[in-house]
Amino acid sequence: MANDRSVDWKFSGSEAAKEASAASLGTYSSKLFALCDPLGKPILPPRSKSAETSHTAEKAVVEAVLCGTGNAYAPSLGLPVARSAVAEYLNRDLPKKLTADDVFMTVGGKQAIELTVDILAKPKANVLLPKPGFPWDVVRTIYKNLEVRKYDFIPEQNYEIDFDSVRALVDENTFAIFIINPHNPNGNTYSEVHLKKLAELARELRIMVVSDEVFRWTVFGSNPFVPMGKFSSIVPVVTLGSISKGWIVPGWRTGWVALHDLDGVFKCTKVLTAAKQFLVINSKPPTVIQAALPTILENTPEEFFHKRQKFLKEKADFAYSKLKEIPTLTCYLKPEACTFLWTELNLSRFADIKDDEEFCEKLATEENLVLLPGIAFGLKNWARHSIDMEISTLEDALGRLKSFCERHSIIIEVPLKDVNGVK
Amino acid sequence: MANDRSVDWKFSGSEAAKEASAASLGTYSSKLFALCDPLGKPILPPRSKSAETSHTAEKAVVEAVLCGTGNAYAPSLGLPVARSAVAEYLNRDLPKKLTADDVFMTVGGKQAIELTVDILAKPKANVLLPKPGFPWDVVRTIYKNLEVRKYDFIPEQNYEIDFDSVRALVDENTFAIFIINPHNPNGNTYSEVHLKKLAELARELRIMVVSDEVFRWTVFGSNPFVPMGKFSSIVPVVTLGSISKGWIVPGWRTGWVALHDLDGVFKCTKVLTAAKQFLVINSKPPTVIQAALPTILENTPEEFFHKRQKFLKEKADFAYSKLKEIPTLTCYLKPEACTFLWTELNLSRFADIKDDEEFCEKLATEENLVLLPGIAFGLKNWARHSIDMEISTLEDALGRLKSFCERHSIIIEVPLKDVNGVK
Repeated sequence: MANDRSVDWKFSGSEAAKEASAASLGTYSSKLFALCDPLGKPILPPRSKSAETSHTAEKAVVEAVLCGTGNAYAPSLGLPVARSAVAEYLNRDLPKKLTADDVFMTVGGKQAIELTVDILAKPKANVLLPKPGFPWDVVRTIYKNLEVRKYDFIPEQNYEIDFDSVRALVDENTFAIFIINPHNPNGNTYSEVHLKKLAELARELRIMVVSDEVFRWTVFGSNPFVPMGKFSSIVPVVTLGSISKGWIVPGWRTGWVALHDLDGVFKCTKVLTAAKQFLVINSKPPTVIQAALPTILENTPEEFFHKRQKFLKEKADFAYSKLKEIPTLTCYLKPEACTFLWTELNLSRFADIKDDEEFCEKLATEENLVLLPGIAFGLKNWARHSIDMEISTLEDALGRLKSFCERHSIIIEVPLKDVNGVK
Repeated sequence: MANDRSVDWKFSGSEAAKEASAASLGTYSSKLFALCDPLGKPILPPRSKSAETSHTAEKAVVEAVLCGTGNAYAPSLGLPVARSAVAEYLNRDLPKKLTADDVFMTVGGKQAIELTVDILAKPKANVLLPKPGFPWDVVRTIYKNLEVRKYDFIPEQNYEIDFDSVRALVDENTFAIFIINPHNPNGNTYSEVHLKKLAELARELRIMVVSDEVFRWTVFGSNPFVPMGKFSSIVPVVTLGSISKGWIVPGWRTGWVALHDLDGVFKCTKVLTAAKQFLVINSKPPTVIQAALPTILENTPEEFFHKRQKFLKEKADFAYSKLKEIPTLTCYLKPEACTFLWTELNLSRFADIKDDEEFCEKLATEENLVLLPGIAFGLKNWARHSIDMEISTLEDALGRLKSFCERHSIIIEVPLKDVNGVK
């Protein structure tokens, strides 16, 4: 029987995730790293972690493991001590205080975004997402078939949100505007004034603001980080957070959603009920890390973040100045947050590169250097360059980038000649 | 502006998870624990963990945390060392060996089930699930709208699968049969002969077998555990596993899906592609535990499992004999695996209890004892009783159960009298 090869098996794999998986950051980066030559120059950015994790976070998890405090299935909304610790942590900056009941634990920042999208998903409903923006929103949203509309930024105004573009997109079925603050990949931090205007606009448009704040600990410019929750007396706000970026613990998969309610609107619109129902059926973050969260949030010395911010500021300054030497790339803003440079490709000045994907592919192939194409963040013909490495490594990366761009630039600009009288 | 309370916000919460969340195990158990009186007798089963976690597992995670080996975003299919370790572990019992490429890491056993359901989800497609069975399948499946058909067991034949019921359910759109082995809540382990017959039947029906084996380490009866993968030369098999139950690390959220392919059928039916695509967009298990997995799987002494099995066997023997003294409950099988007794309620002998939900609610209210109603596993008027506690606690629990049942039993059976000639 086992040797009869003619069985016509009835099952087949679903194609539901095909489009979304192809658009994911991981798919782009895997493809590019695979183009690098493992026998060539060191592949950059280094794939092994460079920045050092918070010792407080490490010790807290070790303690939780050894004491067995995180050794249980957590309630679906999250471990009470973790929810409480997040509320207290966020309250440091909030006039209207959260309680543990307003906070839900998620599998990293990714599930926090997904949960919010799940809550809002309705036939015909649409949400406003930033362009460019963090790709997971889109990936998940394509997949879930919630309509996405993308608003713009004003690069010349410190990448502030283009409120006119927001107004133009909204209709009766618009439920929410998602912001990323500090913004990845733009690299800016929104001012208090700008956020207040956003809150007022959202109120006028009768939509909630969802603020992805996972990069709030990597701010090093002149604008201090202001949480959107500060304006929750104007507009209902949902804050998304996680420890990955701030504590340099990628892969620990522990994040949260905080509901900053306004006059009980999250209750009467069933947003709260929906959140709880989805959390019951969703995957949970590891209890052992949830149990460590109070210690992680309360005991990490400020110095840890300052050191990290100083490290990143140096790299941002250095990379930004070096990029000025590459005329085929334009970086509108010296980053004041996050861990990247976000640059526009001046495609007309390249001789043999048609778009951002080709740029990144050729760069990986020729220089063993991986930049992510702008399309991965929803904006074609830009590129994102990591600055999160030691200065000598960064110098190497930028040197390779420069020589690559020079090699592919139009060197001599020949004026177009009239051909049969037609320009 | 902030004081204007008349805003008619446009958003509202989705109800897509309503039905599924109401049917979840967590919802049932929370409701029952909430009925207990915190000032009364100790609430049973004790909600704080009793059994001791594997020290090997604890040490492995501590090491991974402190060495930073798990401090990175893992590839979407899982950390290579973890995939490889799972393949090697499963290969101990398999004639047809797996490679790391056949294994994918998931957020616990739950996401392993979900991934399989996602892969198979198609309009009109249906899958066969056990009745009773682990509720997450159903929860997730209701939610995803894949049609579910439930097959039966033969309690008198050691709870073997009723193959006639399987045949009766299958049609052209049936893609897979899901089994749970060892079976929770039935508490049995399938014999090698039975599994081989199942493989042959599935081949005849041209469907795959999905085997949830998360309880494989808690086997203490006369039937040894045999993995379904052993028969992957007869039928394509998908094995689901996780470390939670075996290593007593609930909440560590690290599981796997192993594809035991047959003649490349998972490739040509796009099952493999679908699995990879869903993994790209799904949440990932914590890298820090994936990094510890090789040590956990390779270095845990057999003695750890033997000790645990001995502990459970004692409790199963004790509880089963005690249950014989309660005529209103019938337990068809002394458990040979898992951590529960599965009993039928003889409702005709209760005076004032109409079904399993009422039984469990009154029991929680009156005795501070929580049993889960059969309906939570898809089978009405049964109940699942935990045996995973110290003997004195178990004796207390069974004593309360007995006195509760006696109190609610029909004490004197009065023969029905003719009333106006009508019986």
